[in-house]
This record gives sequence, structure tokens and C-alpha cells, in this order.
Amino acid sequence: MRIGWIGTGVMGRSMCGHLLAAGYAVTVFNRTKASAQHLIEKNAAWADSPAEVAERTDVVFSIVGYPADVEEIYLGPKGVFAAFRPGCTAVDMTTSSPSLARRLAEEGQACGVGVLDAPVSGGDIGARNATLSIMVGGEPETFKQVRPLLDRLGKTVVLQGPAGSGQHTKLVNQILITGTMVSLCEALLYAKSAGLDPRVVLQSVSGGAAASWSLQNMYPRILDGNLEPGFYVEHFIKDMGLALAEAERLKLSLPGLALAKQLYESVLANGGARKGTQALILALEALNGIKPTPPAA
Amino acid sequence: MRIGWIGTGVMGRSMCGHLLAAGYAVTVFNRTKASAQHLIEKNAAWADSPAEVAERTDVVFSIVGYPADVEEIYLGPKGVFAAFRPGCTAVDMTTSSPSLARRLAEEGQACGVGVLDAPVSGGDIGARNATLSIMVGGEPETFKQVRPLLDRLGKTVVLQGPAGSGQHTKLVNQILITGTMVSLCEALLYAKSAGLDPRVVLQSVSGGAAASWSLQNMYPRILDGNLEPGFYVEHFIKDMGLALAEAERLKLSLPGLALAKQLYESVLANGGARKGTQALILALEALNGIKPTPPAA
Repeated sequence: MRIGWIGTGVMGRSMCGHLLAAGYAVTVFNRTKASAQHLIEKNAAWADSPAEVAERTDVVFSIVGYPADVEEIYLGPKGVFAAFRPGCTAVDMTTSSPSLARRLAEEGQACGVGVLDAPVSGGDIGARNATLSIMVGGEPETFKQVRPLLDRLGKTVVLQGPAGSGQHTKLVNQILITGTMVSLCEALLYAKSAGLDPRVVLQSVSGGAAASWSLQNMYPRILDGNLEPGFYVEHFIKDMGLALAEAERLKLSLPGLALAKQLYESVLANGGARKGTQALILALEALNGIKPTPPAA
Repeated sequence: MRIGWIGTGVMGRSMCGHLLAAGYAVTVFNRTKASAQHLIEKNAAWADSPAEVAERTDVVFSIVGYPADVEEIYLGPKGVFAAFRPGCTAVDMTTSSPSLARRLAEEGQACGVGVLDAPVSGGDIGARNATLSIMVGGEPETFKQVRPLLDRLGKTVVLQGPAGSGQHTKLVNQILITGTMVSLCEALLYAKSAGLDPRVVLQSVSGGAAASWSLQNMYPRILDGNLEPGFYVEHFIKDMGLALAEAERLKLSLPGLALAKQLYESVLANGGARKGTQALILALEALNGIKPTPPAA
């Protein structure tokens, strides 16, 4: 089985590396060739377009930035569908729109190509350690075929339903994070304003009903003045936008999500686009006329 | 050392029981005597008022409902301070107002009585198993004296700072929970509306950045249609009100907390005052014109 890989950013590079390490023949494409160099040195072949990747392989994976990129990669003039053959499979791992995922699946069906949406959570560390959660939407038959490959990339690989369900599940994941991040930043500001030592507070609140991954991981980073990305604010805003657009389509009122997105927009306004999601503290500080915490020395 | 215990509700009963089991002589008072009966059968003595408890003991613990109850118990005509002697100690474990905690500490200081605020988290199970987190505000000297008693009631006992700091820390704990609960309910509604199976979704989202105590414990209860209390909605609303009042005093804008409280007010409007905090789903369902999920058979 010949594998194609489109998108060699921080996530894609690590993930593709696992397939190369497992001995698969992999052909890669990326908008900028430089970021694929490391994979080419490990024997990945280079292709000049998504269509060329599709021409030379049987299963194509993609993980890029935005839904518009996904659309171009698959449906553009030099896209995967311009060259893919019946019986081939495409797996888009970008966090993208459920509606686009359904559209790709339909296009695929029309030309005998199996298409899965399979976005991931777990970040750069999960990609590096192959411990990602992979949320899959599509046909059970197609899922069964590529499952051994997905198992090389993540430890929690679950078929969530028909095309689009992987994207929907990823958006559920993002919605869950939003409110926790808002209250985490508010709680931290409250603690400081009330004259508490926020590190000592953590001892009291981390073991019970207030416990969360964000509290354990993001709260200490904020205290250290470390707003470096894990996951970019601008990408998180993209995901919240996707979730709100789907919610609107579903006629669903989600006021907490809407507020969280507005607060993250304020992080953009305060220069935090390429900082990590914990930079939400900038919005709460701005809102309260508090000077941003400088990074720890 | 003779111990007094005021407030024998679900929490107080279990906690007081641990001190009796450890062999301490305990005198109890409760507004309704019936709920103290179980402790009296275990050799607790009964007193007819908080003042009578104070008269006959050296350290008085209290855990009641609202700040107004705390005020009456300590400062009322038959209150603890009407009968306490210099050198005695009072420990209020009610989740109450930081300002009231400071006032009690001042009143205590004026008559030679050490006062701690020491609210808890961990719920009825934590009270029963003595695994509570106890967040303490007050003088280090007073804390040192009663610490061995607090260690009988909880496993995480931390002095957070001067009088009021225990209450502030508990409010931080509650603020942290609010946003997580809002996004949990919104994520669940989104999952259902998108046609996902919310139990299968949990497999994909519970191990990563969306993980939280609430997701692990409250999400399954909501799916089961189980809105029974753990912790009453009306008490959670009291805590959010205390936090917002303190935030106002501190000139702190906390929009997430404000929204969460408004949504919980809607749970009240939908008959959920004496349900558990997971009944927040009623507000989101009402907001979206969705009929409440009936309890599982």
C-alpha cells in the first residue's frame, strides 16, 4: 500500500514520520517544501501537487490549516480528486467543517473513492508520541481498511458515525475546552485580586470537582507568564467559528461558546493570534484594565 | 479538648461523626434536632442553642446553609460569641462570604477568640470518607491548634492566608466549575443535535485537553437523566452570588461567571432548585426549546 501525505506542519510532520518509521512508502506534498525536508531525508518521495500525490499512491492523508485549504487540496485543479483512482482512500485529518467533510465524501462516492474525516486532539506532543485521539467520520468499510494506519498515529481511534461525524466530535471537544478556559482565567484573576497566592490555591482546588486538564496544564503556564503555543489562538478561534456556524445551521443557541469566542477575539485584538490558548488571560486582563503579567525570568 | 458542632445536615453529620469516632467529647446543636439524632445515639451531647454549645466547649465547628445563618449562629442573641471564653476557637466551614469571615475574625479578636473560615469541597462523599479539601483562612497560630482536628475531616488541608482567604479560595473553586459546566451542557446538546452518540463521543474526548472532573462525573449522569443532587443548584447559585458580589467589590469584570449564574437562574425558573448542578442542562434545553430528557428506566 503506497501512502500519500499532504501537510507537513508541526502535527503532520510527526504523524507522517510514524508511517515512514513503520516502513511504508510515503509520497509527501506541502505548500512550502522546506518543512518536508526532514521527511524527504527519511526516504519520503516528493510530489509537486496534491494531484501528483494522488496519482502515485493508494491512501492519501491530509492535515492542513483551514477548510479553504482542504477544499483546494481535494477539489482544486491540481487537487487529489483530479487524479485519484476508484478504490483509493482519502483521510482528511484537518479540523475542518462537518459540511465540507460530507461534501468530500459525496464527491468521493461519485468517483469510487472512500473518504474519511479524521481530525485529532492531543497536540504536538500527542502527534510526536502517537497518542492522539482520532475522531473518525465515514463508512465502516473504509474505516476498517485504514484503521491499522490510524493506529500508528494515535491511541484512541473511534469511528463516530457517517461522514462529518469526526469533525462534529472534534468540535464537541473544542466546545468543552472553551468554558473551562474562560472560568480558569476568571478564577485566576479573582484569586489574585482577592490577595491569594494562586499557586497555593491550586493545591486546594486541583483534586476535586474543579479539576481539569486545563487547570493542571494551562493555569501554571499563565502563572509563569508562559503564553507560548501549544495550540494557536487563531486556530482555536477558527474551530469556535466552525462550531458556531454548525450550531446556527442546527438552530442551536450556545451562549457560553459565543461568549468564549468573543473573549478570544479580544486576545486577537491584544496581539495574541500566534500565542497559545492560555493567552485568553490577555482578554480578561484587558477587560479589567490589568497590565499583562510579564514572563517569568 | 471539648468540641462543639453546629449544623448536622448531610455534610455536617458525617464530619462530626469522624470526631466522635476519634473519641472526642462533642456537643451538638442544629435548628431541627431530628437530624442530629444519629449523632446523639453515638454519644454526642445536645445543646439548645449555639450559645449553650459555646458555653460547654473549647472549639466550635459550624457548617450551615447561608451567610445569614452563619451571622445568627455567631452574632445572634443566642450566638456563639454571647458565651465563648477567651482562648476558645471557632471554625466556620460553611461556604459563606469572605467579608463576613473577616468580620467574625475581628469580633473574635476583640474577645480573645480565634476564628477560622474553613469551607470545604468534596461533597457528601468527601465528608463521609474524610477526603475533603479544606480551605482555611485565619491566623497561623489558630490554624496550628485545630489542624489535628481538620486532618480528621479532610485529606487536603491548606492555610490560604488571613481571615476570609478560605472563603475566597472556595469561591475560586466554584468559579472554576461554572464555565466547565456551561460548556459541558452545550457540548452535549451540540453532540445530540449533530446526530452523534454522546456516549461514543465521550470515548474520544475524555482523555485529552477537554478532560475534567465534571465531564467524567456529570456528563454520564445527564445522559442517564439523573439530575439528583450531589450539590444543590440553589446552593451553587448562592456561591456564584457570593463570588459576583466579591468581584464587584474588587471591581472585577467576570463575564463568564455572570453568564453561568444567569443560566443557573433559568434552572430555578425550570423547577431545578433542589436538583444537582448537572441540572444546568435544563436551562440549555429550555433555551433551545428542547423537551427535558426523561430519567432512564
